Amino acid sequence: MRYRLVCLKCGSTLVPNTWVYRHSCGSPLRIELNLNSVEIDVSEIRRREWSMWRYRELIPARKVVSLGEGFTPLLERDFFALRLYLKLEYLNPTGSFKDRGTAVTISKVSELKIRGVIEDSSGNAGISVAYYSSAAGIKAKIYVPRDAPPGKKALILSSGATLVECSSRTEAHKRAIKDSESSEYAYVGHLWNPYFIEGTKTMAFEVAEQLGWRAPSIAVVPVASGTLLLGLYKGFRELYELKLVDKVPKLIAVQGAGCAPVYKAIHGEESCGSSALADGLRVENPPRLEEIIRAIRETRGDCIVVDDYDIHVLSAFAFKKGFIVEPTSVAALAGVRKAVEEGLIDKGEEVLVPLTGSGLKYITAA
Amino acid sequence: MRYRLVCLKCGSTLVPNTWVYRHSCGSPLRIELNLNSVEIDVSEIRRREWSMWRYRELIPARKVVSLGEGFTPLLERDFFALRLYLKLEYLNPTGSFKDRGTAVTISKVSELKIRGVIEDSSGNAGISVAYYSSAAGIKAKIYVPRDAPPGKKALILSSGATLVECSSRTEAHKRAIKDSESSEYAYVGHLWNPYFIEGTKTMAFEVAEQLGWRAPSIAVVPVASGTLLLGLYKGFRELYELKLVDKVPKLIAVQGAGCAPVYKAIHGEESCGSSALADGLRVENPPRLEEIIRAIRETRGDCIVVDDYDIHVLSAFAFKKGFIVEPTSVAALAGVRKAVEEGLIDKGEEVLVPLTGSGLKYITAA
Repeated sequence: MRYRLVCLKCGSTLVPNTWVYRHSCGSPLRIELNLNSVEIDVSEIRRREWSMWRYRELIPARKVVSLGEGFTPLLERDFFALRLYLKLEYLNPTGSFKDRGTAVTISKVSELKIRGVIEDSSGNAGISVAYYSSAAGIKAKIYVPRDAPPGKKALILSSGATLVECSSRTEAHKRAIKDSESSEYAYVGHLWNPYFIEGTKTMAFEVAEQLGWRAPSIAVVPVASGTLLLGLYKGFRELYELKLVDKVPKLIAVQGAGCAPVYKAIHGEESCGSSALADGLRVENPPRLEEIIRAIRETRGDCIVVDDYDIHVLSAFAFKKGFIVEPTSVAALAGVRKAVEEGLIDKGEEVLVPLTGSGLKYITAA
Repeated sequence: MRYRLVCLKCGSTLVPNTWVYRHSCGSPLRIELNLNSVEIDVSEIRRREWSMWRYRELIPARKVVSLGEGFTPLLERDFFALRLYLKLEYLNPTGSFKDRGTAVTISKVSELKIRGVIEDSSGNAGISVAYYSSAAGIKAKIYVPRDAPPGKKALILSSGATLVECSSRTEAHKRAIKDSESSEYAYVGHLWNPYFIEGTKTMAFEVAEQLGWRAPSIAVVPVASGTLLLGLYKGFRELYELKLVDKVPKLIAVQGAGCAPVYKAIHGEESCGSSALADGLRVENPPRLEEIIRAIRETRGDCIVVDDYDIHVLSAFAFKKGFIVEPTSVAALAGVRKAVEEGLIDKGEEVLVPLTGSGLKYITAA
């Protein structure tokens, strides 16, 4: 797999023979594949293993550690007078879509013979990095805000990883980066790390294959650090350039009221209300904010905000329909309903809705 | 799909146009497909949807409700000097392999226009029936022993099902059957219901397809009511009769010390020790005991017993290797290790090990 790293701000390029999570100028990096050298034969892919690694021509890492990530179900449901395609990402090995990004990241880290990694996360990404590292024999330190859900913290500890509790999400991020600078551990934080998006983009490949090599017209996506939205954008763009699909879906970002930097950048105003339930959506300053805005604008998309009331109502709905998802995932469904109300989605459209994280991590004794 | 119900004891046959969970003589029923009328084209199957329903020619129900069951990863690992094929059944929609049996059952119940179901379970089967019923718009009453894990009981309630707590597993079974006799609700208990095995057998189809239409030489399977062992047996037998695989794997049952009726029937003695950790394995009088023994004998298999110490040790091992599984699932791994020690499995053999249930349901605050 031929690729290079490109700085999003200054355009400098790097050859990927050591671990870098951002450019020396301080900006995020993106990975650029040489698509001219890639040939995809869909009937050959159909014969391959049942995992996201069946698209290996488009993944810039060799499979070193896999826990069965990807290849999740896509269910059709008629909700809110729309045809929804629900991608059940909560059925990934550690219970969230993050496993896609982590699998590529830890595979790359392992290829580079790095012995330890540092990650900061409100929960799911931390759990994912903890388990993939452990499975690969790599040490992991996971920095979390002290008020992360107790079940998520317990899970991180069960993997054998070191848990570092910090006063807030922002503090966890700062300390993780600072500590990585004075240690041999590589900082793999999903907010920066460009390999993470190379994993999440495989969701687009699967959706296209599941629909018979077709793209849905719209994708409604919860956004915190933006790795899922950017992954879907990059994945569908690559398929479009390879002429495997005929469009890139319109991207509608969903954020939680009270912490909605994407909404502010697009609409020029703060969001109203609060969304304490969607703990996975709390990222105040996503490093890839500009990249997210660009992807939304290029697809003529938008951003909407949901609050705790929306999430509460849709959570009961999701469980009754058989989907055991966490509140952050429900934000996507709440976003779809709101987008219909606000006229952002016409009735009859085909809408992709990733359900990102498992509700099993939240179940406590009645 | 042409099939009939056959009584395991008296051999009477029934046409399946109403719901029956056992024969009027009191014995369990099995489903007999007319395999002469079935043609399987593996290249046609390869083009189908990513779910267990791609084997629809061999499933005696039309898909009415699906939550994305089946099509789980199969990972190769070299543990205990063996080549293990780990089938990650804990990544099913409600977190266990039971979803396969439930999907077929609730689809059939729905076809027959039955409005309510009753199930008894120590947890996972109850969760599964609760969510599939809710998704299909069917009412569900789930009978559980009072000491079932609190997280499992909370999950059942979140689906909207009615939870009936009983003094023991045996009492839950008796009350569920009794209550179903005086109500319009159909008793779908997985210990009896023959459609359940028609779902679990799809695991064999998937394993065979994942291995390139080949069967492993051995399967090590946790046994409580026996639906998984019987499903694997039936599934591989059907493939063998259709000439899609060249053997049926040797079946090694794993039971928990202190409640091991299969072990007693095969070895003529009670097991020693206790296994409180594997709550999913507690079934004292499985209705299909004779059928289980027959399947084990016909494949020259055996039964081994594991205790809490074995499960405790292997649980830490499983988590460090990245598998977030419940103690009952770990019993399978503990069983493999013990079978090697006891000389039941030769080094170098290919062994199928289903990892049956998710550990996320057990995580509590640290």
